[in-house]
Amino acid sequence: MADLPGVGVFGTGLTAKAFIVMLRASGFNIEALWGQTDDEAADLAQKMDIPFHTSRIDEVLLHQRVDLVSVNSPPFLHSEIAQKTLGIGKNVLCERPAGLDFNHTARMIDAARYYPQLMSLVAYNMRFLPTFQKMRSCIQDGYLGSVLVFEIRVHCSIRFDENYSWNSDGRMGGGILSTFGSHFIDILSFVSGQKAVKVHGFLTTFKKKSSKINGFREITTDDFCTFQMKMNNGACCTCILNNNVPGKFFYEVLAVGTEGRLAVKDGCLYGQQTSQSKDSLLAEDSVELPPEINDLLPGMKEQQPVPLLKGMLQLIKSLRNSFHKFEDPKKWERNSLMYASTFEDALYVQIVLDSIRKSSKSSDWEKVPLLDPSSYTGV
Amino acid sequence: MADLPGVGVFGTGLTAKAFIVMLRASGFNIEALWGQTDDEAADLAQKMDIPFHTSRIDEVLLHQRVDLVSVNSPPFLHSEIAQKTLGIGKNVLCERPAGLDFNHTARMIDAARYYPQLMSLVAYNMRFLPTFQKMRSCIQDGYLGSVLVFEIRVHCSIRFDENYSWNSDGRMGGGILSTFGSHFIDILSFVSGQKAVKVHGFLTTFKKKSSKINGFREITTDDFCTFQMKMNNGACCTCILNNNVPGKFFYEVLAVGTEGRLAVKDGCLYGQQTSQSKDSLLAEDSVELPPEINDLLPGMKEQQPVPLLKGMLQLIKSLRNSFHKFEDPKKWERNSLMYASTFEDALYVQIVLDSIRKSSKSSDWEKVPLLDPSSYTGV
Repeated sequence: MADLPGVGVFGTGLTAKAFIVMLRASGFNIEALWGQTDDEAADLAQKMDIPFHTSRIDEVLLHQRVDLVSVNSPPFLHSEIAQKTLGIGKNVLCERPAGLDFNHTARMIDAARYYPQLMSLVAYNMRFLPTFQKMRSCIQDGYLGSVLVFEIRVHCSIRFDENYSWNSDGRMGGGILSTFGSHFIDILSFVSGQKAVKVHGFLTTFKKKSSKINGFREITTDDFCTFQMKMNNGACCTCILNNNVPGKFFYEVLAVGTEGRLAVKDGCLYGQQTSQSKDSLLAEDSVELPPEINDLLPGMKEQQPVPLLKGMLQLIKSLRNSFHKFEDPKKWERNSLMYASTFEDALYVQIVLDSIRKSSKSSDWEKVPLLDPSSYTGV
Repeated sequence: MADLPGVGVFGTGLTAKAFIVMLRASGFNIEALWGQTDDEAADLAQKMDIPFHTSRIDEVLLHQRVDLVSVNSPPFLHSEIAQKTLGIGKNVLCERPAGLDFNHTARMIDAARYYPQLMSLVAYNMRFLPTFQKMRSCIQDGYLGSVLVFEIRVHCSIRFDENYSWNSDGRMGGGILSTFGSHFIDILSFVSGQKAVKVHGFLTTFKKKSSKINGFREITTDDFCTFQMKMNNGACCTCILNNNVPGKFFYEVLAVGTEGRLAVKDGCLYGQQTSQSKDSLLAEDSVELPPEINDLLPGMKEQQPVPLLKGMLQLIKSLRNSFHKFEDPKKWERNSLMYASTFEDALYVQIVLDSIRKSSKSSDWEKVPLLDPSSYTGV
């Protein structure tokens, strides 16, 4: 059996921890860990038994046994780390949204195009869920006829951090639109092949204080967002993201067409065509999460964004399959990862996110600047 | 036992038929029927065994045994019939939206104020459902803390008419926003005591043709609508009305506050406070519909808007209780109908509907002209 590449992980937050657990569950070794401070890095390295840790970016990148880099840092560092990784010839898998804004992601695309043989992927991992893959193939096969409307709903009440951090700061990539909205904007273009051309958005922060954030600093990130998108072939999308709803983490993606409807919720895909008298179960995300996940997220049992965790595991399984066939731990084959999101896909999501935020400020519909990915030539 | 008033019904459509069935089930006699043409009136009068029918408005209003008028005509006639009814001193219950536009409803208010002892109510009948009454009392009792967000969803695929009619014409009061949106705009102010101050809306018609409407005439009424409302105390509402979703008629009203959430769906009210680990059933609409309803709406079994039918029955039961106590069939007491919607309530809904339509054209947020009902003095 071939060697899987050793992984260097950037980040010490919840997603970084979940990645580490799932990478290990799929047979990868974690060789090095980076944290924003030495203390943070040392603390997590000890807890998770990682042989090397540092707060210096280059020390992970140059680490001899690191051949694959997983970027799970705060968003403002995504772009720098991804560019440097590619620059020294290593493969990179970057957490969404792949940079803080358009310029960040655009520079990542430049780097990826300069090294086309290297892996440069973004962890929009719901693409790897059986339900959304089946939804995609159903839409492609004409199950819905012409697609008319998408409705997306996400309900949760996740307190991202007890203390003030980038998650509480609107300028740093936190908030419900960026955290979950980005995934669903990506999944919509994945399942439908359609892109937004005009958007209207409304973001607000209802809970400006928390038990530990109650001084002069306030939470400035959105905990409620609703947006509408007009898609390039005439369909509409309307989306509600509400991080003030106690109860189980809930999500639903409904697609309605001239000939029927398809809905993914709670890990199941249901479909009904106009000619049918009732709906039927078309696919299920029967993915078993490693039990260690529960230890990582204490007190989050109800609120675990299960589809994202299952998607993450599925993505990592595909990653293993992609490396599995080669002796050289740097070599990978593209077929196993054909569904994965590229930096170009991430740029599209960034542009839509920016347009939604702009619309929320202007209170008007905003055009989404259309970028033809194949004609994109850098900033 | 006292005599219930004889009823004159205006209209021959589905709602008129449902009203007739439910009025009879509650002990009322239908004494006269009006239809837009003599043929329509004669046809339904024969089918439903109604002793008198006509296409002349005055002949029903002046009918000796008619003491209560139920206006279930197309919206453009609501205002004229209601004003005339009050003018000759009879009680009136008007179908929503109570007129075609602001001016229609405003004139109805003038008439109602001129005859304050007469009954002048609008059939926003979901107010009479136990689930929404309980939601209202929970909100009043502080179950939610401060109310932050309302989310409303209605999914259906009702073809209102096989042939072209006012239901297919955007200028005549048809469409999903007017037909169902109006009910939910009313219920929101009923349960929360809040009014919209700004709205943003998007209406569109995806299905412009039907099996029988396929010539040069097109369906111009909205079959998809999404709107947002900012309420007068800072809460937001977002609403999706989608008449392209095959399957069961579906509705949900979710209210989220600082301390918990309340949701009405499928005839049940669920609640969960932040301190609770799971939600619980707080109320249920255990209302038995008269079996004749099913004969009226053949082929609509799945698509029956059950909450509206149940609400209609509950409203009519309250109507009976209100008349029940008096010998004189014109006399009624207000307490049984304290929850009923007045013409002023209907005017508020009209103004919100107008503002949403205006916003859909301007693609901008529109202010809802605030009318203080107590200061309203006519047009």
